[in-house]
Amino acid sequence: MQKIRIAITHGDINGVGYEVILKTFSNPEMLSLCTPVIYGSPKVAIYHRNAVGLQENFNVVKDARDVRDNQLNLLNCFGEEEIKIEFGKPTPEAGRAAFVALEAAAKDLDAGLVDVLVTAPINKHTIQCDGFRFPGHTEYVEQKLGRGQKALMILMNENVRVALVTTHVPMAKLAQCITQPLIEEKLHILHQSLKRDLFIENPRIAVLSLNPHCGDGGLLGEEEQTVITPAIENCFKQGIRCFGPYPADGFFGSGNYRHFDAILAMYHDQGLAPFKALAMGDGVNFTAGLPIVRTSPAHGTAYDIAGKNEASELSFRQAVFTAIDVFRNRLKYDEAFGNPLRKQYYEKRDDSDKLKLDQVTEDDV
Amino acid sequence: MQKIRIAITHGDINGVGYEVILKTFSNPEMLSLCTPVIYGSPKVAIYHRNAVGLQENFNVVKDARDVRDNQLNLLNCFGEEEIKIEFGKPTPEAGRAAFVALEAAAKDLDAGLVDVLVTAPINKHTIQCDGFRFPGHTEYVEQKLGRGQKALMILMNENVRVALVTTHVPMAKLAQCITQPLIEEKLHILHQSLKRDLFIENPRIAVLSLNPHCGDGGLLGEEEQTVITPAIENCFKQGIRCFGPYPADGFFGSGNYRHFDAILAMYHDQGLAPFKALAMGDGVNFTAGLPIVRTSPAHGTAYDIAGKNEASELSFRQAVFTAIDVFRNRLKYDEAFGNPLRKQYYEKRDDSDKLKLDQVTEDDV
Repeated sequence: MQKIRIAITHGDINGVGYEVILKTFSNPEMLSLCTPVIYGSPKVAIYHRNAVGLQENFNVVKDARDVRDNQLNLLNCFGEEEIKIEFGKPTPEAGRAAFVALEAAAKDLDAGLVDVLVTAPINKHTIQCDGFRFPGHTEYVEQKLGRGQKALMILMNENVRVALVTTHVPMAKLAQCITQPLIEEKLHILHQSLKRDLFIENPRIAVLSLNPHCGDGGLLGEEEQTVITPAIENCFKQGIRCFGPYPADGFFGSGNYRHFDAILAMYHDQGLAPFKALAMGDGVNFTAGLPIVRTSPAHGTAYDIAGKNEASELSFRQAVFTAIDVFRNRLKYDEAFGNPLRKQYYEKRDDSDKLKLDQVTEDDV
Repeated sequence: MQKIRIAITHGDINGVGYEVILKTFSNPEMLSLCTPVIYGSPKVAIYHRNAVGLQENFNVVKDARDVRDNQLNLLNCFGEEEIKIEFGKPTPEAGRAAFVALEAAAKDLDAGLVDVLVTAPINKHTIQCDGFRFPGHTEYVEQKLGRGQKALMILMNENVRVALVTTHVPMAKLAQCITQPLIEEKLHILHQSLKRDLFIENPRIAVLSLNPHCGDGGLLGEEEQTVITPAIENCFKQGIRCFGPYPADGFFGSGNYRHFDAILAMYHDQGLAPFKALAMGDGVNFTAGLPIVRTSPAHGTAYDIAGKNEASELSFRQAVFTAIDVFRNRLKYDEAFGNPLRKQYYEKRDDSDKLKLDQVTEDDV
């Protein structure tokens, strides 16, 4: 029963990353839940710590094998190197530092030296380099640690979970990206993630429409009839309890979202604008569908308040909790369903009262 | 100082229209604020009243000139005609009844017999007929009572106001509808409406981006650079305090919307999904930009709860209040700014100390 080891990447060092990490672990009880390993630089960490007036000490290590429980471990990815910190500025140096830490954490995660990954926010422009040509963490993690599996971004808090069919697509090209196979693929990943990662036995999924008013019977677009509804019906036949499509505004306005375990939105702003309006700062971004577990806070680098001790650690702490929960749920799920016993089967109206182990029920198939 | 006369159309008679109207005016204080005139049918009204267990009496009239203050007036648009009510069903009969009442109210509003229009929800399919070929009330009112002016839909409650550049457009055609002249037109209408209709002296407007992440510097679409930013800059030069573009999810997630008097969203779901998520049932739909004042609740016919006494009148009551406020604000504004005095102008560093009435300041232009 070793504690869960959490690899934490420091993200963009000119943003609020270190602040929310340090604030999260300033509560000593956090160390009884897990063993954190910050992938970063001791010098940068201390600079941030002093800037926001915290007092934590680090157990600085060079190798994840030297990590100790009950301590705030800091894995030094930079040796004695000096890295310039400029609060609130996008700099190439900060981008490179974010990349180096991320690579180190990904390597250790792949090698099994740590259990889960929680990433502090990066600047998606400055981090770009030969090793990182992606729109964000999700795509990086998918390619680097996905072993060929497809990632699905899920934004969640205690009340709402939103997954997206498309993420970073220009609106001019959106409609052509919404295809039946893509929606079905996302529904399958989401369904499986709700069951295994969140341990929801029989999850209910709401699917949003693409067009306003659900296309209004074809007047405002036909994708609901030609693409989305067939995808829902297909998946429903395959045992996924998915419903819809629902028009986004009425769905969120009526509070109907409370009746579902997750919502599948067609595109970025449709799902994330209402989610973030409702989540009010405690949202978590979870990368589902992959063999590894990765979460992050739902906010960005927050350059405008970097170094000012104004950042809230709420979302980051939730990201840590979510990573722990998902890791545990997967163990529990695999134990429960990994190698199931055959169902014992009695034929009703059969007087023999004999256990028929040769019979197969539908559930076994 | 005659009371403001409010024309109220009964909307779809199989929905919750009468219920929210009657609940709103079951509070006697409402009659001290305004003089309501329901455009509908006494028989239908009484059927609904009894179904939901209310006890109001009506002053039934045939002509808006016979309306009395301090009474709940009901203008009979149907004579002795029987109209079949089928709670929760979309029927052609209910659609026709909604249209007849709307036409009568529009006529009286145009003739100046009533002051403002508050519409109960219609079914946009069953109401279609030779006199009504529109996607909704807004477009009908624009053509019928707009005198050539362009309407702008504003959804508002006490904390947030959202206007839309485009409304009922399929997503496949959205990007090509977002043009610089259209955004500028909407910004001008919104600015003027905030000043005259809501009496906000120097309103601040936030403009949302079209693409996710504000187009991410062109990677996710170029409309921000080629269309939206030039429109904002142009309008800013003309004295409109507009800012942006802002990415929708971060804008609503950060609570940044609280710093603006209104938000201009690029399309339906982008503006309305987060608005309705935040408004939680007290939203009002206001048709700005026209010579007449028209409001409505932000909800629809709510067929699922029709006739069950489960509907909340909150949004409808807010719609009545908003119509009264806008009507009064316009009177106040026109009185204050209708015929302004010339600004008295002193030239600084001019020893003559003489009032120069021949000089023109920038504000006068």
